Amino acid sequence: MVREEINKNINGNITDRDNALFEAGIKLGALYHQFIGTPLSLENKIAVESAIQKSISVQPFAENVSVKINEKMIEEELNSTFKYTELSGKMLDVKLVVRYNSVRVFASLQFDEKLNYPLMKVDQVEE
Amino acid sequence: MVREEINKNINGNITDRDNALFEAGIKLGALYHQFIGTPLSLENKIAVESAIQKSISVQPFAENVSVKINEKMIEEELNSTFKYTELSGKMLDVKLVVRYNSVRVFASLQFDEKLNYPLMKVDQVEE
Amino acid sequence: MVREEINKNINGNITDRDNALFEAGIKLGALYHQFIGTPLSLENKIAVESAIQKSISVQPFAENVSVKINEKMIEEELNSTFKYTELSGKMLDVKLVVRYNSVRVFASLQFDEKLNYPLMKVDQVEE
Amino acid sequence: MVREEINKNINGNITDRDNALFEAGIKLGALYHQFIGTPLSLENKIAVESAIQKSISVQPFAENVSVKINEKMIEEELNSTFKYTELSGKMLDVKLVVRYNSVRVFASLQFDEKLNYPLMKVDQVEE
Repeated sequence: MVREEINKNINGNITDRDNALFEAGIKLGALYHQFIGTPLSLENKIAVESAIQKSISVQPFAENVSVKINEKMIEEELNSTFKYTELSGKMLDVKLVVRYNSVRVFASLQFDEKLNYPLMKVDQVEE
Repeated sequence: MVREEINKNINGNITDRDNALFEAGIKLGALYHQFIGTPLSLENKIAVESAIQKSISVQPFAENVSVKINEKMIEEELNSTFKYTELSGKMLDVKLVVRYNSVRVFASLQFDEKLNYPLMKVDQVEE
Repeated sequence: MVREEINKNINGNITDRDNALFEAGIKLGALYHQFIGTPLSLENKIAVESAIQKSISVQPFAENVSVKINEKMIEEELNSTFKYTELSGKMLDVKLVVRYNSVRVFASLQFDEKLNYPLMKVDQVEE
Repeated sequence: MVREEINKNINGNITDRDNALFEAGIKLGALYHQFIGTPLSLENKIAVESAIQKSISVQPFAENVSVKINEKMIEEELNSTFKYTELSGKMLDVKLVVRYNSVRVFASLQFDEKLNYPLMKVDQVEE
């Protein structure tokens, strides 16, 4: 029994579109709160990006994930004594495609300068 | 400018229902990956439940949240030498209501015995 | 068999003082990376402080723990649209006493303004 | 001003050995609570090991770090429906060398079967 079937059985009126959006939210919330705080410098930036990208990719319904950490922000926030900083939400630029049966959701996490906020949002839905 | 407006401006075809589902997923993914691993015994169970519940509640669109940690599982998993364990996904029983404009999503996180999995799912959508 | 004995058996030349210092470091590293990123406002500040304090307290050798989150910093960092922020290292003021057999270590985590760094340090050792 | 000097100024009677042990504890507590819960399968195992190893390495006083995740345990714990699991403490085998001035501490995190516990311990101190 696959997860799609389970959700269908339980929720008569929940559509594939609904589940795709829910799953996209789960992925972004998960990665944010799993990895924020990771010790970071230019030396481990690529390793951290790769671990985040691949950790999201092993989860159900994740079709495509890209993760970039803002290099300039790392440099600006390097502690002058200890030469490292930690991963913060505003450094992250994530693009995610979730597929749930025939529905694809394109979502992202990106720092929004006007809101001064690492904004997670739905960019597009394809049915 | 409130967040609802922001999302509307960017995404012509994204509905309130879509955003409500996306936000519900964010909350559950976030709480799971923020708090899993927290040192736990019967002595701090209530404090941890309360912190999780209130931490989700301060986030946008969270209308109602309840968090229960399974007491029996804590007892079963207490280390016999050190008398504590850590919060794991299967211990969590979370019920969440997200409201986005006129749409309410009821979602939950609960251990599914058949799947042997801490399952996040959409229980109901009200428009 | 208690943990003290285990460590003694394995490490002939490791003293109680050594183990007390090691354990103090574990506690501070653990709490930092467990709770950083928690959604935070003045509404859940006390619940989060309490959960951190009690979660450290259930761990072996923790004799006393106090946790304060800087209220002023929360206010300064509240997002103007969403009215919350997240727990960051510089907001934390933690005092910890670890006891390992007859040795007590007093350690702390506090934002150091000169270093611009949430500094963990050993304040005192009593034998 | 380097961190060694800071600690010396503050703590008259705290030795380099003390600080080395404290720092070793910080590193192990930090990595554990940062990465536990990371979604995991055989596909991202190496990326996660690498990110943990490099994230500890960018921190002060970390001279050498090796991180292995137990492949067999991943296989045993893969969810049969979703084909992934999450990083748990017992999967981790970490060896760490911290150097603080002329003192080296060798510490480790390894699952202890007798204790049924992911045990952090000091293996050796060199002055």
